[in-house]
Amino acid sequence: MTDADYDDLMPNAMKYHMSAEAFREHGYAMIDWIAKYMQAVETYPVMSSVKPGDVRANLPAQPPQHGEPFEQMLRDVDEIIMPGITHWQSPNFFGFFPANVSGPSILGDLLASGLGVQGMLWATSPACTELETHVLDWLVDMLDLPERFKSTTAGGGVIQDTASSSTLCALLAARERATSFDVNEHGADRKLIAYCSNQAHSSVEKAVKIAGLGRANLRLIEVDESFAMRPQALAEAIARDAAAGLTPCFVCATVGTTSSNGLDPVRAIGEVCKRNNIYLHVDAAMSGTAALCPEFRYIHDGLELADSYCFNPHKWMFTNFDCDCFYVADRAALIKTLSVQPEYLKNKASESGGGESGGVFDYRDWHIPLGRRFRALKLWFVIRHYGIEGLQSHIREHVKLSQEFASWVEADDRFELVVQPPLTLVCFRLSRGSDEMNQQLLDDLNRSGKLFLTHTKLDDKLTLRFSIGATYTERRHVEQAWALIQQTASA
Amino acid sequence: MTDADYDDLMPNAMKYHMSAEAFREHGYAMIDWIAKYMQAVETYPVMSSVKPGDVRANLPAQPPQHGEPFEQMLRDVDEIIMPGITHWQSPNFFGFFPANVSGPSILGDLLASGLGVQGMLWATSPACTELETHVLDWLVDMLDLPERFKSTTAGGGVIQDTASSSTLCALLAARERATSFDVNEHGADRKLIAYCSNQAHSSVEKAVKIAGLGRANLRLIEVDESFAMRPQALAEAIARDAAAGLTPCFVCATVGTTSSNGLDPVRAIGEVCKRNNIYLHVDAAMSGTAALCPEFRYIHDGLELADSYCFNPHKWMFTNFDCDCFYVADRAALIKTLSVQPEYLKNKASESGGGESGGVFDYRDWHIPLGRRFRALKLWFVIRHYGIEGLQSHIREHVKLSQEFASWVEADDRFELVVQPPLTLVCFRLSRGSDEMNQQLLDDLNRSGKLFLTHTKLDDKLTLRFSIGATYTERRHVEQAWALIQQTASA
Repeated sequence: MTDADYDDLMPNAMKYHMSAEAFREHGYAMIDWIAKYMQAVETYPVMSSVKPGDVRANLPAQPPQHGEPFEQMLRDVDEIIMPGITHWQSPNFFGFFPANVSGPSILGDLLASGLGVQGMLWATSPACTELETHVLDWLVDMLDLPERFKSTTAGGGVIQDTASSSTLCALLAARERATSFDVNEHGADRKLIAYCSNQAHSSVEKAVKIAGLGRANLRLIEVDESFAMRPQALAEAIARDAAAGLTPCFVCATVGTTSSNGLDPVRAIGEVCKRNNIYLHVDAAMSGTAALCPEFRYIHDGLELADSYCFNPHKWMFTNFDCDCFYVADRAALIKTLSVQPEYLKNKASESGGGESGGVFDYRDWHIPLGRRFRALKLWFVIRHYGIEGLQSHIREHVKLSQEFASWVEADDRFELVVQPPLTLVCFRLSRGSDEMNQQLLDDLNRSGKLFLTHTKLDDKLTLRFSIGATYTERRHVEQAWALIQQTASA
Repeated sequence: MTDADYDDLMPNAMKYHMSAEAFREHGYAMIDWIAKYMQAVETYPVMSSVKPGDVRANLPAQPPQHGEPFEQMLRDVDEIIMPGITHWQSPNFFGFFPANVSGPSILGDLLASGLGVQGMLWATSPACTELETHVLDWLVDMLDLPERFKSTTAGGGVIQDTASSSTLCALLAARERATSFDVNEHGADRKLIAYCSNQAHSSVEKAVKIAGLGRANLRLIEVDESFAMRPQALAEAIARDAAAGLTPCFVCATVGTTSSNGLDPVRAIGEVCKRNNIYLHVDAAMSGTAALCPEFRYIHDGLELADSYCFNPHKWMFTNFDCDCFYVADRAALIKTLSVQPEYLKNKASESGGGESGGVFDYRDWHIPLGRRFRALKLWFVIRHYGIEGLQSHIREHVKLSQEFASWVEADDRFELVVQPPLTLVCFRLSRGSDEMNQQLLDDLNRSGKLFLTHTKLDDKLTLRFSIGATYTERRHVEQAWALIQQTASA
């Protein structure tokens, strides 16, 4: 059929839809807009300087009664939205952790939008489930993760929205394992204890609240001078709780903490967990991607002792948010924790195996939401576009730049490196500066619009975080950033 | 800068990225692909007929070492992925509930991919937060929802991934309200009871498991002949539990159940909740969109008694998955339930008001995940493209077609209408047919590839569900479907 044929078929009521022809025209314009943005983004002030309410003040109070032309919407994007954007894709973005995107990922995601399939069950679009399982198995090989996380064993991987959700799902599976699924059935009774280092991500505390353990039952274990969990301290805390009649059930180890990229020793922690029959989840949200390169795989040493693991291609692997890869060694336990079986979702394919023994996977039972988008497409496109070689090349470049940046910090005696950066996060501060002076430096830098970085506290002192990993960050951006930091510190 | 200038700037390591020029070329190709898909989708067999493992069998066992050309990826989409797609966007898709998409939504989502901002905090891209708040306020007006759900009161709206997550967040807020935030702090102690009708969505049971209440503490309240919750039965169940020393804390009313589109009487249920000081959440995931039209707003009668509410533009409002709009009357309680405050996320804008009293909203405290995509763009594009008028027109058309379909069922004495459809879901079966015969009819229809519908059980009998709402469904598709159903029933 031609466009004209199709338009002929449209009765009046269909005329409000965007025709295929108009979609093509506006689609090209949107692609052009993004291509231009990719090229121009480094020239924008990185941090938005709007004040609270500024964006809303430019939006009409009432929604439109009648449809508006697409061109007007694009103009409003430029005039109203863009001033309120902090540019995560700027090569001068060194804040938080990256949320990098890439051409192939944007296009894979576009395809997912166009197909509009809902992958809650294998049967609701088999390719959506099978491509996801397949690509997550690929990643086990690409990162050299333990075989037990592959779908061909009792384990398997699934795409979650974020590491926060993975941590929650892991905690839920741990809670049920420790109580023989009694909490699922009858509710919690205040005896379950969870553990992470005092540097672990806030999502562990959030999960402990959500799952009904209560944050008084989360133990924050002390860390060593590299901000990594002390396994001995963990073992002691577990022993104390067990002696008090409590039930230790869950440990979250972090491979690359948010504050300082601290690397918890997974093997030693895993051995403590094994001895005490405690579920171990490993959160490598940012740093896991490093394992694409054999020289960085030491960060995962001992991972075969973990019950679950996650890392985020949406941080450092050029894959658009949201894309967190969550792996479990015992998928049946996860599915049992999260599964409910209403009549209206029953189907022959699901009943042939229940996801547990040779049948199909119904991914709705692997996470909190029921519905799900075809997110594997963008990940598949990224892996195929870059190849292992291309991904490795960029990861190595980011690590190299970070290490060089750290060496510049070390060579300037106005600054101190707070900790040796293992990968791409450099923590530093004015060596003789108060918290106020460091805050001032940070604010001045960010206000310049020429770069963006964020802070944390380490050893109770305000510390600047310089995190490399945006898609288009090159040597020149890091050099410019360092020059500006030196210059601003002088002033 | 021109593309060539930019390419000149790229050192070797950047060469693995897709250049802006290549992105433009492949982007156009992807837009063309989707435009063609929009036009051709009605000619495809709706339900995929692949067998488990078929898709994976066509994918290489090993990930590629070297990058591959984009053209090859698109070819593989056609040859490997497409046979495994069940076409949710086909105008002949009448299964489950729709997950409809539209041109403006796809392009708004594409823009979100291109910008790649992460909206966890107001400060991380003010426009991402403010546009979301603004558009959700618009929708309060568009659906004539209670003012207390507006951000200009003590309430406000947020985009969640799915209604499942909204139900969970509502339950968590209810749990904390009933225990003065004691579960958050110290953990649950098996006394909290939740209620929904025996027709409510499975996500309520899932939430009750996740939140640690235990499914033995979920009461499934009986329904009347229209499959709507009986408020009297709810009141009795609450009284029974309270008398037994348990703590009733949460009621989920459903406006448009998944099985049969049953409409729980929100006002009567709300009054029971008020009398007993119980949190009321209203789940209108599918049917809420009907309230765009004044004549259907009766479905929300009594909604001002609810503590929270959600509906899914990603079902029936032409907005790509994921987009569930979740509203609360008391945002401070939700934020307190879900908030954690690590140093590395602190910033001046957040501290000026904490989201609770005139300061900015940090949406990470309104849901489970920390990170978030700029989902408001697609919703904004949809509302502006269609205008209220265009949206109303399509909603009315879908309801009209459904009512006509129901009248055809009624007029054919081989079939019975199981319940009068209030909106767009028609439940019917062979009037003198066993469950096996109805299942056979369903299987034959779906195997034809000419349409897709699903089933449920009502009054313990297998029932076919005919759900209208795909973007491109027109009268002719409904007529063809009915002709095929009649013909298949004859055979």
